[in-house]
Amino acid sequence: MGNFPKDDSIILLYDRESKKRHIINLKNIEKSYSTAKGTIDIEDIKTTEFGKVVKTHLGHEYILLPATLNDFIMKKLNRLTQIVYPKDAAYIAFRLDIKPGDTVIESGIGSGAMSAVFARILGERGRLISYEKREEFIKNALKNLKKFNLDSIVNVKQRDIEQGFDEREVDAVFIDVKEPWLYLKQAIEPLKCGKVIGILVPTTNQVSLVLKEMENLPLIDIDVSELMQRFWKTNPERLRPLDTMSAHTAFLIFARKVCY
Amino acid sequence: MGNFPKDDSIILLYDRESKKRHIINLKNIEKSYSTAKGTIDIEDIKTTEFGKVVKTHLGHEYILLPATLNDFIMKKLNRLTQIVYPKDAAYIAFRLDIKPGDTVIESGIGSGAMSAVFARILGERGRLISYEKREEFIKNALKNLKKFNLDSIVNVKQRDIEQGFDEREVDAVFIDVKEPWLYLKQAIEPLKCGKVIGILVPTTNQVSLVLKEMENLPLIDIDVSELMQRFWKTNPERLRPLDTMSAHTAFLIFARKVCY
Amino acid sequence: MGNFPKDDSIILLYDRESKKRHIINLKNIEKSYSTAKGTIDIEDIKTTEFGKVVKTHLGHEYILLPATLNDFIMKKLNRLTQIVYPKDAAYIAFRLDIKPGDTVIESGIGSGAMSAVFARILGERGRLISYEKREEFIKNALKNLKKFNLDSIVNVKQRDIEQGFDEREVDAVFIDVKEPWLYLKQAIEPLKCGKVIGILVPTTNQVSLVLKEMENLPLIDIDVSELMQRFWKTNPERLRPLDTMSAHTAFLIFARKVCY
Amino acid sequence: MGNFPKDDSIILLYDRESKKRHIINLKNIEKSYSTAKGTIDIEDIKTTEFGKVVKTHLGHEYILLPATLNDFIMKKLNRLTQIVYPKDAAYIAFRLDIKPGDTVIESGIGSGAMSAVFARILGERGRLISYEKREEFIKNALKNLKKFNLDSIVNVKQRDIEQGFDEREVDAVFIDVKEPWLYLKQAIEPLKCGKVIGILVPTTNQVSLVLKEMENLPLIDIDVSELMQRFWKTNPERLRPLDTMSAHTAFLIFARKVCY
Repeated sequence: MGNFPKDDSIILLYDRESKKRHIINLKNIEKSYSTAKGTIDIEDIKTTEFGKVVKTHLGHEYILLPATLNDFIMKKLNRLTQIVYPKDAAYIAFRLDIKPGDTVIESGIGSGAMSAVFARILGERGRLISYEKREEFIKNALKNLKKFNLDSIVNVKQRDIEQGFDEREVDAVFIDVKEPWLYLKQAIEPLKCGKVIGILVPTTNQVSLVLKEMENLPLIDIDVSELMQRFWKTNPERLRPLDTMSAHTAFLIFARKVCY
Repeated sequence: MGNFPKDDSIILLYDRESKKRHIINLKNIEKSYSTAKGTIDIEDIKTTEFGKVVKTHLGHEYILLPATLNDFIMKKLNRLTQIVYPKDAAYIAFRLDIKPGDTVIESGIGSGAMSAVFARILGERGRLISYEKREEFIKNALKNLKKFNLDSIVNVKQRDIEQGFDEREVDAVFIDVKEPWLYLKQAIEPLKCGKVIGILVPTTNQVSLVLKEMENLPLIDIDVSELMQRFWKTNPERLRPLDTMSAHTAFLIFARKVCY
Repeated sequence: MGNFPKDDSIILLYDRESKKRHIINLKNIEKSYSTAKGTIDIEDIKTTEFGKVVKTHLGHEYILLPATLNDFIMKKLNRLTQIVYPKDAAYIAFRLDIKPGDTVIESGIGSGAMSAVFARILGERGRLISYEKREEFIKNALKNLKKFNLDSIVNVKQRDIEQGFDEREVDAVFIDVKEPWLYLKQAIEPLKCGKVIGILVPTTNQVSLVLKEMENLPLIDIDVSELMQRFWKTNPERLRPLDTMSAHTAFLIFARKVCY
Repeated sequence: MGNFPKDDSIILLYDRESKKRHIINLKNIEKSYSTAKGTIDIEDIKTTEFGKVVKTHLGHEYILLPATLNDFIMKKLNRLTQIVYPKDAAYIAFRLDIKPGDTVIESGIGSGAMSAVFARILGERGRLISYEKREEFIKNALKNLKKFNLDSIVNVKQRDIEQGFDEREVDAVFIDVKEPWLYLKQAIEPLKCGKVIGILVPTTNQVSLVLKEMENLPLIDIDVSELMQRFWKTNPERLRPLDTMSAHTAFLIFARKVCY
């Protein structure tokens, strides 16, 4: 009784030669999946154990793997916006101190990368409420989240956050909008006293404006940081970093709400 | 009906002036908690809402906050070893693709920082099995985990992992030992086919030895990276990074197990 | 009496629109210089002051600038090898403590980027002796140095450095070869007692082998470092780093020769 | 006929055990130099070759080395201000394209670190004109430069640069003052058309203000960057970066003056 894909498994077909990756939610496949190197019958996939090889009708081999959230964000997500990268998303969720079952607010929804990381940790008993003004972003992000079976954890509210948030006593708030300093006052209202708000901005001008606005708000223990990730080549005899790396994704700002 | 600490809340008493932090699990306090600036009655704490101020008998004010896992790891953990830092721990948990309810193996337990991050995400329905040879590390790590109410999720096995692991079909394996290349063969045995193993090492010699050993094992999609975090000063008019930063914590290696 | 190009000036024709750069040593131009946007008469160039505009026969405007060594290395150098990048080259020359009039040995010559930086500082009264085994590299590097009028300062010796160096009492030695640990014993012989040797290697395996060999040699005050340069976008309202950066060029090792 | 210190040699006494460094200009020593581990007669130093050992009257051994400019800046310079660090100084001199014999303007003089790097490359036939308002900085910087025998190359002018600069047709200009945007118009006046101006600022607010002001001035080819240097431990069997590093020294801005 092996480890076979289920009807709604998200699988990764990994081509050893080209290192190309196909990420597929099986619930979205009718009968077969087509690659440039031939077609794979869905029944062949469902009767192959993870970690083993599945062949196209032309005989090309793919390794059948469970897709990870990292695969999904880096390779499958349809991007209408800059996404929140895994190194940042994982750290943000950590610093917001979220755990299974929590209730979290984010705004905006972007392309759903951060939402997916939150939803994954929150689990079925948790709830992510995502405020987003633009319908096209909502549609795209929900489509992305559906592909990874995470849409049921997310409530989207199409709203300009200038008007504030409906919820109260939520465990964490995350703000990733263009002018966050305009909405910080509103953003901390739904947050439980003592809990953490996180803000992501790409430019130093935005960092300055957020920090300035924070001086007027009941926030303490403020910190700003950036994470840089450097990948290395995997040749053990000639170990060295890759030639290029991402130079910048975002500045991350965290603070805690006080209520005295 | 406000947001008061519970009998086993982990609280942070934050001193606005000195920025000093006291992290306390209330279940470990009998009657009062003593600081250099006076004593605080536990009843005063329990009847104060989070985000508000609590006073010592000398009148010194502390802000009462819920302690985050970040506070705990950075400020409270008793360290017998190099710890896994939050930036790394959060990313490792993400790349291992763990979610609430999963079963994860780690070895060694270190001081329990990585264990705490895993346990937090795994939640009550999940399980972390931690293999560790040295009794003093086990004792210290469990004491640390207890302070953050996370010990119930962790099973410790005092064992030399050369003899292998008892479990099979676990969702992720994480290895943080001195000579991981000696145990990789054993370490991938309990792992579900297709799932991810993570290895943390501080030196490039170790990276080379791990990569070399991986060539002999059914592992694909290997990557090596390092994360650097740069904190910035929070003065909006004179925005700039801090003067110093951590130059290095660890190299992170990830790979997926195949079974064909 | 303005600041006009001379017969052997190295000029930069800078296209404001495309930001494309043409770097030309006027001594190599007979009558005119052709660009995709038209031809420029050399007399037009020689009668235009630096900082002003020169036009092609099609009316396209280029700004006439003196080419810098940075332009030359980054844009004009014909590369047969990895070059030593400006950030590294400038620092290496500094750490080797070279000054006008010094005598310096380097091996190999690579594409001549490091040689150019050395030659520029050494000046006419200085001397760079460059040991290189491969004729094609010598030819290419000398051609590069000629284009920047720096060839007269460099003596090239086609030689396998296993056989040692002819000179004695030189002010600095710089080694940029594939297996520097094989030649370190020879490389410090020509060096004045107390002076600095620099070694450049791209991989950590090489760093380890160099450091190991250094333990057997009369070298002290050893340090290893790497320089990372992050360029920023120049929009003052949206200040942020570029999206990508070079992740790695080289590890730099410096040590001092002792003679007791 | 060996390589002995001269009457005005700048020497480094290097303690192998403690790695402590004493940097001394012999012209400033009357008869002997005192260390915590005993006194060294100046005649003993002058009759010892570089690279050999000299002893205190208590028998403690120091290695006699020529001091490098790096030793001088990092260990000997008396600092009244933030200094320009070697990694930055070497790159700045390179990007300003200065060579032996050039004429360069800088403002302010700071503690003289950048001045020393300029003066070293400019050599005896070159000239550095340093504008500085504050007398205490001038005195301190000149004292520093004297210690390294570089004061004769530097002309200091005590002046508020708001009133402009006396010189014309200089080869490079470097500005390291608190509000450089106020003086950029003046600063490019003395610069030869086509040549490079460099500006150093520590904060992003300053970078934005400089970039904004540059939009109004005849400057092209503007770039902004920062250099990070990571030192590594020198154990070949356990190769890894040091634990901490400098997180930030400065942002470097370069541009070229046009005259059309």
